[in-house]
Amino acid sequence: MARIVMKFGGTSMAGTERIRRVAQIVKAQADHGDEVAVVVSAMAGDTDRLVNFCREANALYDPAEYDVVVASGEQVTSGLLAMTLQALGCKARSWMGWQMPIHTDSAYAKARIGDIDGEALGASMARGEIAVIPGFQGLSPDNRITTLGRGGSDTSAVAVAAAVKADRCDIYTDVDGVYTTDPRIVARARKLKAVTYEEMLELASVGAKVLQTRSVGLALKENVRVQVLSSFTEEGAPDANTIPGTLIVSDEELENLNVERQLITGIAHDKNEAKVILTRVPDRPGAVASIFEPLAEANINVDMIIQNVGRDKGETDVTFTCPMADLARCTEILENAREKIGFNRIITDTKIAKISVVGVGMKSHAGVASNMFSALADRKINIQAITTSEIKVSVIIDEDETELAVRVLHTAYGLDAE
Amino acid sequence: MARIVMKFGGTSMAGTERIRRVAQIVKAQADHGDEVAVVVSAMAGDTDRLVNFCREANALYDPAEYDVVVASGEQVTSGLLAMTLQALGCKARSWMGWQMPIHTDSAYAKARIGDIDGEALGASMARGEIAVIPGFQGLSPDNRITTLGRGGSDTSAVAVAAAVKADRCDIYTDVDGVYTTDPRIVARARKLKAVTYEEMLELASVGAKVLQTRSVGLALKENVRVQVLSSFTEEGAPDANTIPGTLIVSDEELENLNVERQLITGIAHDKNEAKVILTRVPDRPGAVASIFEPLAEANINVDMIIQNVGRDKGETDVTFTCPMADLARCTEILENAREKIGFNRIITDTKIAKISVVGVGMKSHAGVASNMFSALADRKINIQAITTSEIKVSVIIDEDETELAVRVLHTAYGLDAE
Repeated sequence: MARIVMKFGGTSMAGTERIRRVAQIVKAQADHGDEVAVVVSAMAGDTDRLVNFCREANALYDPAEYDVVVASGEQVTSGLLAMTLQALGCKARSWMGWQMPIHTDSAYAKARIGDIDGEALGASMARGEIAVIPGFQGLSPDNRITTLGRGGSDTSAVAVAAAVKADRCDIYTDVDGVYTTDPRIVARARKLKAVTYEEMLELASVGAKVLQTRSVGLALKENVRVQVLSSFTEEGAPDANTIPGTLIVSDEELENLNVERQLITGIAHDKNEAKVILTRVPDRPGAVASIFEPLAEANINVDMIIQNVGRDKGETDVTFTCPMADLARCTEILENAREKIGFNRIITDTKIAKISVVGVGMKSHAGVASNMFSALADRKINIQAITTSEIKVSVIIDEDETELAVRVLHTAYGLDAE
Repeated sequence: MARIVMKFGGTSMAGTERIRRVAQIVKAQADHGDEVAVVVSAMAGDTDRLVNFCREANALYDPAEYDVVVASGEQVTSGLLAMTLQALGCKARSWMGWQMPIHTDSAYAKARIGDIDGEALGASMARGEIAVIPGFQGLSPDNRITTLGRGGSDTSAVAVAAAVKADRCDIYTDVDGVYTTDPRIVARARKLKAVTYEEMLELASVGAKVLQTRSVGLALKENVRVQVLSSFTEEGAPDANTIPGTLIVSDEELENLNVERQLITGIAHDKNEAKVILTRVPDRPGAVASIFEPLAEANINVDMIIQNVGRDKGETDVTFTCPMADLARCTEILENAREKIGFNRIITDTKIAKISVVGVGMKSHAGVASNMFSALADRKINIQAITTSEIKVSVIIDEDETELAVRVLHTAYGLDAE
């Protein structure tokens, strides 16, 4: 017997027919003798419908009232799944975010989960009741409904798993696991049996959109074993020891799992970054700070930063990347600070891609970065910028060369399936 | 300054455009300096959509989960109205049923309101915040969502008005008040300035579907002044002393209002009753009880009962009426009890109508019933059954004669507008 938290997304919950399929998967898990909680998203499209109502009602809507409106989508699917499970003969009941409660902070529309009181929930599960929990929602210190931001249901599932000390949190999605790279680009991409939290964070934050980044961070912090697997296979529910998807676990557990390790775990790509160049910035103390302080205040996430010596002495060019969605805001802020910073021109480029090689193995192996540069150079792919972390090397290249670069690196690091 | 609870139904809340119109009416009320709470229904059609989901999910759905699903409709409109009021510059916030809370019993899907803690709500209103409250929903002793049954939002509004000691509860609807009779039948029907709770109960329960009967009963019990008025007029919001609709008040207050009183307040008709005749029932003690006990147990609301002496001595025919919707269940129950009751045949008739004259004035005036009978007899309308209360006389007639009977009585009691 194990205690399992299962999470199903909006595509799986889109309509009563699909909810019945979900209920069958959940029932199969419970029929193994496992204690089960299920976290659900709203029906696909429903949250968009509700968000549009809010925008029509008030372009500058109060996020607290927005949360009242949009949290209703998950309320509906949780009630429907509970009654569908009952129709299949299971004991089941729904638990709203305010009922457990799932405590969050007061940052309405983008709240962060704090404590979850898992006691009543755990007792209910121990009595053999399947707990059905709306994802994405919680309760503020002011006793009002909060939501966690789009995609927050993954985070809800991990938080619930931590609260009830679940043996595993299974995230059912429309892919059957985490791959060495995007299978639409590399046909010989392989499904990974397991990755570490840190690898998953790097893979997720650079474009492998299987799991919400925040949920992986929470799993790391709370040490929750997460599995990504498909809700559309016909295999039926796994027992606690079968892992049909990809496990996301700690470094130590990965060692114990006895899976074959590669130096590099995966290759990620991300076309959603833009490059910004400020030319002829005065080369004096505080100049660079005057660029990035206002951007940080505006919550714009600057990634890579490069400082080149300019043509004239006493001046440099400063290059950095930021999310494409923030580019307009970013240039507006810089224009407003033109006098203070003292640059000449702003040059922007959205036709770039970030390619990353990720793997905990590189902690103990030198040469990963230089292998990457030479593999790309062999195919005449020009590198515009480089950034590295303990388990990742990323480069910026021309967007048109994205697929070529991913394939070259996938082969170079020996990741191609046989 | 007055404290006003306003209630808007599903037609008024159907879409963000209409919600904006509602917000304007509410703002006008607040701009008079009144403290305002608003109770809202779900968007027209939304509750039906959610009920259908439940039926698809589980034909024998758990009413507690049904309540989780269907209560979401009012949650959406209350959040949207709050943010729309904010867009108009008003201070406003939503209060879910579980937040105040509105305590109910545990009869999920048909809960009855118990206590409402009006303290936090009243304090918020006193600070100048418009409180927006989803109708139809409450909180069970088990800390779960309940709903009050279809049309329950009127009852929510009256209950909230009682809890915050409101000066008046304004029910905005698609008619502009209570009329002496259905204006679609009698063009010269007059809008009433005021009726008593008891009259409204009789008018509502016999087919004048302006207000949910239960809400009027609660208003009577809690002595809440209710006004019915239209949300579709262009007159703008009334101040506390202007009564554009119909007031529903106590007998004593009606005296003080100094409105012109008629002997008869209104004529109601109801085509939703069916007549049942059991022939040749043994005329012995306990025989009639054996008919009505099983019907009462099945919650079938029997209205008029008549016992005729049959052709043979020692036998009688028993006639009664019940709601058309319960007729099939009613005959099934009687067939199952045939041996115990000992009747000969069941004859049913759905082509009947109940016509009622209602008025507190008849308490102190004899002759109302005989005037009714002779007015109908003059037009050769045959009376099949009669029932009376302190303030009402009802007769059963052939359904085809409904309109004629209503017009004849409306004129006979001097109710026609000049």
